[in-house]
Amino acid sequence: MHPVLIDGHWRPADATGSFTATNPATGESLADAYPVSSANDVEEALAAAARAFCEWEKLPRSALADFLRKYADLVDQRAETIARAAHEETGLPYEPRLKGVELPRTTGQLRQAADACLDPAWRLPVIDEAANLRSVLQPIGPVLVLGPNNFPLAFNGISGGDFAAAVAAGCPVIAKAHRSHPTTSRLLAEAAHEAAADLPPGSVQMIFAVDHADGLAMVADPRLGAAAFTGSRSGGLRLKRAADEVGKPFFAELSAINPVIVLPGTLVERFDAMVDETATSGLMGAGQFCTNPGLIITLAGDDTERFVAAVAERYAAAAPQPLLGPGVLKCLAESVSTLQAAGAKLIQGGEAAEGAAIAHQNTLLRIDGAAFLAQPDALQTEAFGPCTLVAVCDDIEQVRQVLSTLEGSLTGCIYSATDGSDDAAYDELAPVLAARVGRLLNDKMPTGVAVSPAMNHGGPFPATGHPHFTAVGLPAACRRFTRLACFDNVRPHRLPAILR
Amino acid sequence: MHPVLIDGHWRPADATGSFTATNPATGESLADAYPVSSANDVEEALAAAARAFCEWEKLPRSALADFLRKYADLVDQRAETIARAAHEETGLPYEPRLKGVELPRTTGQLRQAADACLDPAWRLPVIDEAANLRSVLQPIGPVLVLGPNNFPLAFNGISGGDFAAAVAAGCPVIAKAHRSHPTTSRLLAEAAHEAAADLPPGSVQMIFAVDHADGLAMVADPRLGAAAFTGSRSGGLRLKRAADEVGKPFFAELSAINPVIVLPGTLVERFDAMVDETATSGLMGAGQFCTNPGLIITLAGDDTERFVAAVAERYAAAAPQPLLGPGVLKCLAESVSTLQAAGAKLIQGGEAAEGAAIAHQNTLLRIDGAAFLAQPDALQTEAFGPCTLVAVCDDIEQVRQVLSTLEGSLTGCIYSATDGSDDAAYDELAPVLAARVGRLLNDKMPTGVAVSPAMNHGGPFPATGHPHFTAVGLPAACRRFTRLACFDNVRPHRLPAILR
Repeated sequence: MHPVLIDGHWRPADATGSFTATNPATGESLADAYPVSSANDVEEALAAAARAFCEWEKLPRSALADFLRKYADLVDQRAETIARAAHEETGLPYEPRLKGVELPRTTGQLRQAADACLDPAWRLPVIDEAANLRSVLQPIGPVLVLGPNNFPLAFNGISGGDFAAAVAAGCPVIAKAHRSHPTTSRLLAEAAHEAAADLPPGSVQMIFAVDHADGLAMVADPRLGAAAFTGSRSGGLRLKRAADEVGKPFFAELSAINPVIVLPGTLVERFDAMVDETATSGLMGAGQFCTNPGLIITLAGDDTERFVAAVAERYAAAAPQPLLGPGVLKCLAESVSTLQAAGAKLIQGGEAAEGAAIAHQNTLLRIDGAAFLAQPDALQTEAFGPCTLVAVCDDIEQVRQVLSTLEGSLTGCIYSATDGSDDAAYDELAPVLAARVGRLLNDKMPTGVAVSPAMNHGGPFPATGHPHFTAVGLPAACRRFTRLACFDNVRPHRLPAILR
Repeated sequence: MHPVLIDGHWRPADATGSFTATNPATGESLADAYPVSSANDVEEALAAAARAFCEWEKLPRSALADFLRKYADLVDQRAETIARAAHEETGLPYEPRLKGVELPRTTGQLRQAADACLDPAWRLPVIDEAANLRSVLQPIGPVLVLGPNNFPLAFNGISGGDFAAAVAAGCPVIAKAHRSHPTTSRLLAEAAHEAAADLPPGSVQMIFAVDHADGLAMVADPRLGAAAFTGSRSGGLRLKRAADEVGKPFFAELSAINPVIVLPGTLVERFDAMVDETATSGLMGAGQFCTNPGLIITLAGDDTERFVAAVAERYAAAAPQPLLGPGVLKCLAESVSTLQAAGAKLIQGGEAAEGAAIAHQNTLLRIDGAAFLAQPDALQTEAFGPCTLVAVCDDIEQVRQVLSTLEGSLTGCIYSATDGSDDAAYDELAPVLAARVGRLLNDKMPTGVAVSPAMNHGGPFPATGHPHFTAVGLPAACRRFTRLACFDNVRPHRLPAILR
């Protein structure tokens, strides 16, 4: 059984159990066994992180930047090994997805975080000399990062955006691997550990799994400054409740259906492109993107009938891709059932795919606007995977009503004609949609999440736990892991350097 | 029975009951009767606020600034009437406290908020032209403000810091008055309503009271963007839970004991000043400040004995001031009992004051460091009112241990000698204290909360619900009432002006 990384050492876990990952392409269990850590492991990790945090407060920011750059270099050097492990554990393509796109994105984020370490501006320092009062965003304390299944590198607890942002904010990280890709996580953690040789022990730690109760205790522990979670709604809400109860900031990315409105002029002006963009975005990564467009909203008409048929054809023609694991397949099947039970009609797919791989048919469902409005809660069930629901509305007012029933999403998009024919509809719908999403798009599918300082990967609940913050985009993502600290009449030599 | 201000009109409440305030100086009920609003009133207020919010998005920011300035002018014109009502309802001195200090502070905040309306910088706009991606903090939606009992003007739901910050952020406000000062709240709401004549109905609304269940439903309502609460820990936590359950930002200021460490050199260098500052700050406003120094931590020794005796003398000599209401007196008596039951010894006071006024003796308690460490939870019970606990520790290590048991507070202070003799102790203690407070002070009591852009009136739980935000200090306080909004490939003419 593989060891855990606690307090600066790889050492045997105090294990209450073990698990192995599954190769989604074959459905077979992988050989490496990983521990489920006990409360003792959790306790030691928390204590070590708290000690490291005290030491970090004395470190120059450049030491953190150096760590992040060294780490990025090591990951780049080991790109092939890491991406192969991720491919084996997730079924995602080795190229271009993992090695060519996600790994460079990951190391790019680490290097951007290194830059953020050295940039004081995002900490929003304010100095009022007359009142002898100063404030600045300070690191919040050790951060627990719980990464999701769908981005084994770029959102991994030990290498992803939350990790990078927390370190850049000045917070040691305890990473919990996702059970679907422990070897990928271990290889990354090994690189992180090597890169952190000059940092205090406990600066970066990795445990592979904990029991539910230990996870709940962990997010509520007073030594923890904050937690960041990306994953399922049910698991995230349990942890959020435990954190909320003790007023612990818990940054959760939970669920999103990412509505896309296709106004009629779009289908007139660029029918083929619209079909292509819908199918490509809907099936990207077997639909396992946080920003997957799960709900397409259209107006009834011949063009929409042709559009639905053409997308269905594309879904039928595309070979089902492996899902990330058996749990994803099970949830997806349940969601498809829920949608059908609420009145959605199956146009294409709908079943698990045949063969050894863990996969599901590319699935297209359809509902009329009036039927959507009869059961809006059930019909906005997230179907994580290659599944898209098309809602066909009678008119713009019905679209508005559908939008007004929607919970928060990460993204929302409106496609409209360039000749102005959809402009009145756009003006009617955009404010209703914008209030419900973190990122509003025009004429573009939401699946790409650029690592840009202007990005918002966030949004109203349940897309995330707090709509003020973003999980992607540096340096803004660092702000989650800070608290506002004010210094009143503090003697000059005792002030943080940034406030002198 | 007085009417409520809903949807642009003063109209009779749909009342489930009524209440009157008490004059703390006489203990008698005041004549004016105010309604407890039903769920129908709440529903209408929420619907009106949601409509107003849609209209506000189309308004120029200058319209909000104009409103805030007009409102401030009206409050200044009616200063005498408003301050007299506040005096009658709260027992706080008419001069200088209410008319001379708190009222000008209130109108000053409103005018600073007007400036914040016109300043786009605090919204943190970011434009990435290459990626055609833009983000900015946008108003979060209608805000419910629940004001506390202790600042009837500067923290009133209809005129205080939260109100001003929400309006400046672009959010219509539903204010719930505090039951202890409804007439003050009504007079302010009348001025707000007149000043808002050019704004849509529902821009500023006032209800006087609601039943518990309606309050819980209100903070969780999807039409509400956020809520801001200042008040008791138990009431705030109930509302926070309801808001957390649906992922609604709930900015709560709940509880704080505001530890003050007096290092030995201070008593050598400036004994008399230290006694004076302790007694003045501890008894200011009858101790009913969020930033009241409830716990003084000292080192055992002759100087400390003299210090405790001198403070006790000051507490005995000062006449008990009226408390804000019978509820405050009851809670204070319970807290004093809790502290005594946990081992604190009474040095001075300890009982309700004699006479018609609602008042409590100025109370000083004492505990040894070891005894504090035996029951740290009970001994950090907030005793809201003129009550101070002095913890006398054996050594700096014991002080450190005491500090490490403390929950979050708004403020924390260390007094130290100027000759360097306390510097080692300071360096040992300051990081432990700083991690637990929103504002760290040197050589200064915490009761003054300057309205400065560099202020932080916030801190770790349970001082507030989220340590990233401040309730005082513009424009920073506005950020609470915003969500991050990103615009991806949005056509230029559809962008908010700030992002074009």
